[in-house]
Amino acid sequence: MITKCERNESVEPLVPPVNFADVEDGVYRSGFPQPSNFAFLQTLHLRSIIYLCPEPYPKENLEFLEAHNIRLFQFAIAGTKELSVDVLRDIITETLKLLIDVRIHPVLIHCKQGKHRTGCVVGSLRKLQNWCLSSVLEEYKLYAGVKSRDTDLKFLETYDVSYLQQSLQTIIYQYQGYSSIKQRRLL
Amino acid sequence: MITKCERNESVEPLVPPVNFADVEDGVYRSGFPQPSNFAFLQTLHLRSIIYLCPEPYPKENLEFLEAHNIRLFQFAIAGTKELSVDVLRDIITETLKLLIDVRIHPVLIHCKQGKHRTGCVVGSLRKLQNWCLSSVLEEYKLYAGVKSRDTDLKFLETYDVSYLQQSLQTIIYQYQGYSSIKQRRLL
Repeated sequence: MITKCERNESVEPLVPPVNFADVEDGVYRSGFPQPSNFAFLQTLHLRSIIYLCPEPYPKENLEFLEAHNIRLFQFAIAGTKELSVDVLRDIITETLKLLIDVRIHPVLIHCKQGKHRTGCVVGSLRKLQNWCLSSVLEEYKLYAGVKSRDTDLKFLETYDVSYLQQSLQTIIYQYQGYSSIKQRRLL
Repeated sequence: MITKCERNESVEPLVPPVNFADVEDGVYRSGFPQPSNFAFLQTLHLRSIIYLCPEPYPKENLEFLEAHNIRLFQFAIAGTKELSVDVLRDIITETLKLLIDVRIHPVLIHCKQGKHRTGCVVGSLRKLQNWCLSSVLEEYKLYAGVKSRDTDLKFLETYDVSYLQQSLQTIIYQYQGYSSIKQRRLL
């Protein structure tokens, strides 16, 4: 939790949202952004936000998005422990299809705490990227900490990305960065 | 720790190094990469590795670097608790100067566990990026976990980036990514 900020005489320090992290180039994760995080979010030059809760987006956050031309995509996941595995799987798949579309990048994925819903989406992305399951689970647990849920770990273990993977392998998801220095595949 | 990997009939799953994470676009952190991580590292298309320990780099890692044209930069930090603050500060400053040079990106920073030495370098980078101190310390603690060291937290609190910040503000560290979609400043 953000409790204290250092002072800088010239520039106000930047406060990332709670549980903020880079996931991939142009893909970020976090807990719910507060107005105190808006200056930091500006530095990411976001094109989109993927919001994973059913509650309406707060007015001041909507105003921030509008002011910076950031598109909001909402996937109403009531809560990873409240939903049936079938429903959660379908929503996560729809979220993933959007998330890997580089035209919406840079994108921030967030829920409330950046632990469970966000952890399930990022974990599923890692499976799509063919990460070893134990590393997927380790990453989930890193951000969930003591709030780690067995239901989420079980979901990540059983979530089958093979259909999505096969569909995507017919399309090249390649993008370039750092002028000619960098060339990398998301999948 | 990597203990188990899922099987995929067509492609071997990728195993990231322990404590692996994206820091910034083109900047990664981790614990010591093992041969089992080499296939994963290939997907990052690294240009460089910044290695923070005094011990010689293992032969098989050197062979991997040579095979993939990855440059090794070594900064011999004996250990963050063994060094005086002055010595640590000077090495961290030299490391930062190199780290922010986008010509060496994509770059992986690693020590042994990816907790203390790597945590101090990444934390210092965050200060240079004007992150709020409490967020810098939270990020350090996320990766250090129960091994979090008060000496490192104290170092991060007192490490002064203003001189480096001023020198760098005379230079534009701007790079482009995702064709025209992305434009972002490291500093």
